[in-house]
Amino acid sequence: MILLDGKKTSQELKEEIAAEVTAMRQQGQKVPHLAAVIVGNDGASLTYVSSKVRSCEQVGFESTLVRLPEDTTQEDLLKEVAALNANEAIDGYIVQLPLPAHLDEEEVLLAIDPKKDVDGFHPTNFGRMALELESFIPATPFGIMQLLERYKVDTSGKHAVVIGRSHIVGRPISILLSQKGDFANATVTVAHSRTKDLKALLNQADIIVSALGVPNFVKADMVKPGAVVIDVGITRVEDASRPKGYRIVGDVDFEQVAEKASYITPVPGGVGPMTIAMLLKNTLLARRRAQS
Amino acid sequence: MILLDGKKTSQELKEEIAAEVTAMRQQGQKVPHLAAVIVGNDGASLTYVSSKVRSCEQVGFESTLVRLPEDTTQEDLLKEVAALNANEAIDGYIVQLPLPAHLDEEEVLLAIDPKKDVDGFHPTNFGRMALELESFIPATPFGIMQLLERYKVDTSGKHAVVIGRSHIVGRPISILLSQKGDFANATVTVAHSRTKDLKALLNQADIIVSALGVPNFVKADMVKPGAVVIDVGITRVEDASRPKGYRIVGDVDFEQVAEKASYITPVPGGVGPMTIAMLLKNTLLARRRAQS
Repeated sequence: MILLDGKKTSQELKEEIAAEVTAMRQQGQKVPHLAAVIVGNDGASLTYVSSKVRSCEQVGFESTLVRLPEDTTQEDLLKEVAALNANEAIDGYIVQLPLPAHLDEEEVLLAIDPKKDVDGFHPTNFGRMALELESFIPATPFGIMQLLERYKVDTSGKHAVVIGRSHIVGRPISILLSQKGDFANATVTVAHSRTKDLKALLNQADIIVSALGVPNFVKADMVKPGAVVIDVGITRVEDASRPKGYRIVGDVDFEQVAEKASYITPVPGGVGPMTIAMLLKNTLLARRRAQS
Repeated sequence: MILLDGKKTSQELKEEIAAEVTAMRQQGQKVPHLAAVIVGNDGASLTYVSSKVRSCEQVGFESTLVRLPEDTTQEDLLKEVAALNANEAIDGYIVQLPLPAHLDEEEVLLAIDPKKDVDGFHPTNFGRMALELESFIPATPFGIMQLLERYKVDTSGKHAVVIGRSHIVGRPISILLSQKGDFANATVTVAHSRTKDLKALLNQADIIVSALGVPNFVKADMVKPGAVVIDVGITRVEDASRPKGYRIVGDVDFEQVAEKASYITPVPGGVGPMTIAMLLKNTLLARRRAQS
């Protein structure tokens, strides 16, 4: 069994990005600049956003954190988005989700200039990805594809079963895995809440991508010997023994399943750390595209 | 076995659209107006376009056929597209493909205003469809979904295998079948040229959608008894006994497979006739959306 080590791989990626940024700076070029908008004071969201901003600093990006009060109106948020679209200093930006309940998330996401949409959530980017045009790929599926590529996992003609059909993980990863190209070309099945006999389906899978959000759902008896297992589940489970009072648990019963898998991502330290690295990668791409 | 009769269903759809147009006219509203752009003199393309224009007349739409010479430049074609985007009289339009080899198809399709893109080929429409927002669904997958709905075919939790991953059929139908909703919610596998042991996969399928373009590829021994079989293949096969010198042959060995299927589309007379009806439906939707 080979561990698909997202912590190590994301570190390598960050080092590569940092080296590119150093070269850009040395050549007198503008370096990438990521902005993040956060509305309100949700603790988890603030943690995520701070972590993204800190990662920008690590790789030498410029970064801007736009903090708006909890009671920001839709109109004011849209004005902020329009200002970021117009601001040539900003190469890419994200609006941290979820937004407070009184705000219309969809309208906000649609207002983001697709060229600066480094989260890849805008329909234009989704469509461009699906139609194999230049786009921004959402961080989680992009991170999974990177892990497969860096570990040279053979996916061509393999049967991949993706559990989950969400817009930001299940749907895009199912498309990417079945497109033409290296570390793709898989035969892909999308399974979801209505799927009958998921166990029988998983037993046929050469590759399993689980994006269900149910802790320890995937057991050893659902997995074919030698399968590649990608665990996208990140559920907080109460744990009084931990300093934060919880621990992060994946969809996959890791200890059992690791014994059968050929490759497996741990949780934490698998797909999770890759997402911030891919956000940085998208921001670098945004800068490169803006200058070309 | 129940025949999924596209000829009859498309006729019903056209009658429903015609009735709506009559009501629009009676209420003094603008009626839908479809334009079609064709470059050059390709016989098959001219036949398709004429048929689309004729169908517009049948349902009471306004229609405009823009014929451009074979040697039209990219610049002139883009000017025509810009003019159609700006022309408020035109609700929707299509650019007939393929374009002559010297023209850049991708650039032309990207220049079409997504709000008038009744073929549903623009990435923004593709992305909106995949993200379950209001969009224009490409005619062929839209036609398949309509057939399933009109015949009340139970798809929820069924295993659908789609053969083909093209941008205009395989990919969109695989997404639509696996989305939430009635006559959807299927567990969907996308198979393609790299798929190993397609026969074994098809033998598990409750629903088969074949968009391969290989005449009579799907044989009875690949089909599970009671399966729903949708044949998107349209291949011209030489046939001296026919007035046109060819006949249209589907991907499915119809006579054999029909004996095992619960529902099946014939070729011709299945998915084919639905496509023009769905183009008209999209144009009606474009008009409704423009006025709301």
